[in-house]
Amino acid sequence: MNSKTNRAIGVFDSGIGGLTVVRSLMERLPFENIIYFGDSARVPYGIKSVDTINRYAAQITDFLIKKEVKLLIVACNTMAAVAHQTIADLSPVPILEVIDASARMAIQNTKNKSIGVIGTPATINSNAYTRAIHLLKKDVKVFSQACPLFVPLVEEGWFDHQATKLIAQEYLKPVIAEKIDTLVLGCTHYPLLKPLLQDIMGKGVNLIDSAEAMADIAANLIDEQKISNKNGLPPDYVFYVSDVPYRFQTIGERFLGRTLGHVELVSL
Amino acid sequence: MNSKTNRAIGVFDSGIGGLTVVRSLMERLPFENIIYFGDSARVPYGIKSVDTINRYAAQITDFLIKKEVKLLIVACNTMAAVAHQTIADLSPVPILEVIDASARMAIQNTKNKSIGVIGTPATINSNAYTRAIHLLKKDVKVFSQACPLFVPLVEEGWFDHQATKLIAQEYLKPVIAEKIDTLVLGCTHYPLLKPLLQDIMGKGVNLIDSAEAMADIAANLIDEQKISNKNGLPPDYVFYVSDVPYRFQTIGERFLGRTLGHVELVSL
Repeated sequence: MNSKTNRAIGVFDSGIGGLTVVRSLMERLPFENIIYFGDSARVPYGIKSVDTINRYAAQITDFLIKKEVKLLIVACNTMAAVAHQTIADLSPVPILEVIDASARMAIQNTKNKSIGVIGTPATINSNAYTRAIHLLKKDVKVFSQACPLFVPLVEEGWFDHQATKLIAQEYLKPVIAEKIDTLVLGCTHYPLLKPLLQDIMGKGVNLIDSAEAMADIAANLIDEQKISNKNGLPPDYVFYVSDVPYRFQTIGERFLGRTLGHVELVSL
Repeated sequence: MNSKTNRAIGVFDSGIGGLTVVRSLMERLPFENIIYFGDSARVPYGIKSVDTINRYAAQITDFLIKKEVKLLIVACNTMAAVAHQTIADLSPVPILEVIDASARMAIQNTKNKSIGVIGTPATINSNAYTRAIHLLKKDVKVFSQACPLFVPLVEEGWFDHQATKLIAQEYLKPVIAEKIDTLVLGCTHYPLLKPLLQDIMGKGVNLIDSAEAMADIAANLIDEQKISNKNGLPPDYVFYVSDVPYRFQTIGERFLGRTLGHVELVSL
């Protein structure tokens, strides 16, 4: 046991959606300490410009590096899509990000080599998923679709409302037309729409949940680099947020799947 | 003609929704210079905490006061609802805000003394409309309803989509049940949903558009205080934003009803 392996995994997101990633990490790596930062004061990132997203991503990376994390996980698809280099330039520790994790899982799952990707406008416009998939496998077709209303619908808690269904049908129509067999949920909010999306896409389509993909890849990296926490104690979870917004507790606990413990407010 | 009357009207909002107020001001006061600040990097405010909204409102007030405006107009209902005192403490010039303007117009319009108010969660939770209405007239009943999905629906441009209709019907059901005859659109985004909302509420209900209410009150104040711009030249319009986000031009021009001229990016 050394101090380095006891250090926390740092997870960050534009808001509280990244708690779906924390939830998967808690289940996959039950002895790891986790520090989470959610930029709830400035959420959503998905509709902001590339410059602004990079500036915010740099501030959060600095914050977590000062907390001496042993690994950085970029849970926010938007930041992974447009600010990867900024984060890499600032971080002395390994970085994992949801886009790479989901791209790997999508390739493992597709049989007909047609993958759909849904996400925020910034994620989709960046074309980061298509690049990540093609870096791993060239002969795969990728069809992308921005779904700007999904985040507010999830935050409203309307997971199976008739309006959500209508909106999802409209967004997914062009993706369905391409006869994809695998759909990447390219935003941490979307796993909460999984039953509805599965229903619309049909049983034959695999839905790739980036939170689960990330937990697998994080477990592998921790094992390979021999940095797993071996003290066998119940881990510490600390949640930092830049705002405690409207219905934070309700929404946060829905994402995390359990009670939010220690939440600290910080202003970057 | 003196330098004070030539000074601009400063209008500010959490994003670009306040351009509906600028549009009404341009039409009502065609010789007045206008400086607009939209905090598009940090929009939406409606789901943030009171502390965060106050901090941001203070930064914007400082910014516009340094531009030597002769009048401050708080176009954002959320800021007017929760940060009025913060803004008043910082401003040496008169302040007008949308809530007071809309409350006055609603009272002039109601016959059965039952007024509905719709807005963002922060605006509705603040109860600011009810207070503003009761300060002017005590024997009026006010029924409020938060409509968190309306802002993203408007930004998506889905003004008459079937999903928007379903969502609006659900939000408005409790307000309709109260048999109100006047509905305040307590958010600068909502005027773009006017036809759909009128349809759902029925012809007998007056919809109060805060942009129009504000232009009337601003015109009165400028007249009373003798600060109208008398140089007779075509006015200058300057738009400052904290981010140039996804589809900024399209959405901005939809709100303003004309081409956006000179837009400057500033970071607060």
